Amino acid sequence: MGYANVKSTNFYAPKDILRSAPFFADFKQDVLDRFADEAKTIAVPKGKTLFLQEDDAQWFYYVQSGWVKLFRETQNGNDIVLDVVSSGSLFGESALFEQNTYPFNAEIVEDTQLIAFPLLLLEKEISQDNALALEMLKYIGQQNVLKDREIEHRTIQNAPQRIGCFLLRLIKENPGGPVMLRLPYDKTLIAARLGMQPETFSRALTNLQKKVGLQVKGSAVTVENIDQLVSFSCSACSGLFPCSDLNPDCVKLQK
Amino acid sequence: MGYANVKSTNFYAPKDILRSAPFFADFKQDVLDRFADEAKTIAVPKGKTLFLQEDDAQWFYYVQSGWVKLFRETQNGNDIVLDVVSSGSLFGESALFEQNTYPFNAEIVEDTQLIAFPLLLLEKEISQDNALALEMLKYIGQQNVLKDREIEHRTIQNAPQRIGCFLLRLIKENPGGPVMLRLPYDKTLIAARLGMQPETFSRALTNLQKKVGLQVKGSAVTVENIDQLVSFSCSACSGLFPCSDLNPDCVKLQK
Repeated sequence: MGYANVKSTNFYAPKDILRSAPFFADFKQDVLDRFADEAKTIAVPKGKTLFLQEDDAQWFYYVQSGWVKLFRETQNGNDIVLDVVSSGSLFGESALFEQNTYPFNAEIVEDTQLIAFPLLLLEKEISQDNALALEMLKYIGQQNVLKDREIEHRTIQNAPQRIGCFLLRLIKENPGGPVMLRLPYDKTLIAARLGMQPETFSRALTNLQKKVGLQVKGSAVTVENIDQLVSFSCSACSGLFPCSDLNPDCVKLQK
Repeated sequence: MGYANVKSTNFYAPKDILRSAPFFADFKQDVLDRFADEAKTIAVPKGKTLFLQEDDAQWFYYVQSGWVKLFRETQNGNDIVLDVVSSGSLFGESALFEQNTYPFNAEIVEDTQLIAFPLLLLEKEISQDNALALEMLKYIGQQNVLKDREIEHRTIQNAPQRIGCFLLRLIKENPGGPVMLRLPYDKTLIAARLGMQPETFSRALTNLQKKVGLQVKGSAVTVENIDQLVSFSCSACSGLFPCSDLNPDCVKLQK
């Protein structure tokens, strides 16, 4: 399984796209060239299932644009959203650690442009090139940091705090004044991404608006007072705002 | 910071201990020798704080025996237990991905025997030895798998299911009949490890005893009917029992 069931535009991924992509940015030129040579750029429409959990994994993916939902299904049929990833993210590479099967389902949330690479190429390259293995280690280590944060938040933050945290991570930095932003995907999916039921999300959003200077109209959100939101949400976090993991310089393997 | 403030027995870790340790088992002999030469075996008494979050990290640790609580503190003073690790586990190595500071506090839960290794040695070795970098990648990848499972469970399992899951992971395999086991550490810590308040844990344990064939007296637990417990807890999990991550052969980097 992989991208075979979706429309492939079948041209090589331009090397300059990869050069500016976080995961590939530090690759040596010859390694980057080999990835670019075997890459396929594919456009996948909203609603499409890219692969299913436990499918044989032949490809991993870099998101150029759009949103992809990564989720699992429990034995009794509930979905658990592990992440919703967008431009600059990789996914599917963790199949390397799960006997070359995908550890989750991937579904396209908004029309998405992906670059697909053979997992075999990644395996071969990291086994031959230590600099690349260290890049990969750094990347997987960063994923661990994010997952620890997610465990922390799903444990300790209440629903309004979690929504506040989600908004702050979209804002990324404190501009020192009011901020307007658009929710990146629909509220039902945001609820699932935050591990809550839609009705809990709806109540919590109302609650959040009352507690901090926040206005929500459809998908448009205005945060009047960032400091108030930071104080409300980040009190139930072991980190400080701006979140260190959003600054790539703060999370790197020492050399 | 590191082990300096605890009693060090100051003898070299025997090479045969490392050879049988999961992380070190596949090391080449000369690499293993270098780790053994720089290792320190230390005994740390219950209650001791080994290091604090954001301490400069000079050591990573292998647990020979005992239990170590890894936790963070939120800005408003709540503890979040990320994990409680025991014999065969590594911890502290993730400081490599956090600018050589520890990403959590480590506190000794039961008298514990540790082997400490310099992080600098690990950094140096993985940068020079691709086989070792791949071992490290495999290990960090496995941690990712476990963390995804933890995110899943903290989201979807109710409190009794989570306790049932905790017991099943101690049992590891279905022996086809009743099982007796001892809780590995006190119930307050188990509650924290499972992300719940002590009173929630207490109610959930009573609830669990009513729902499935289970008896609890102090720290002694008898599971009369494993299948019933599996059916109850694993219905809210995307995996099957026995858990694949408890079988090291199921989680490895393809070669």
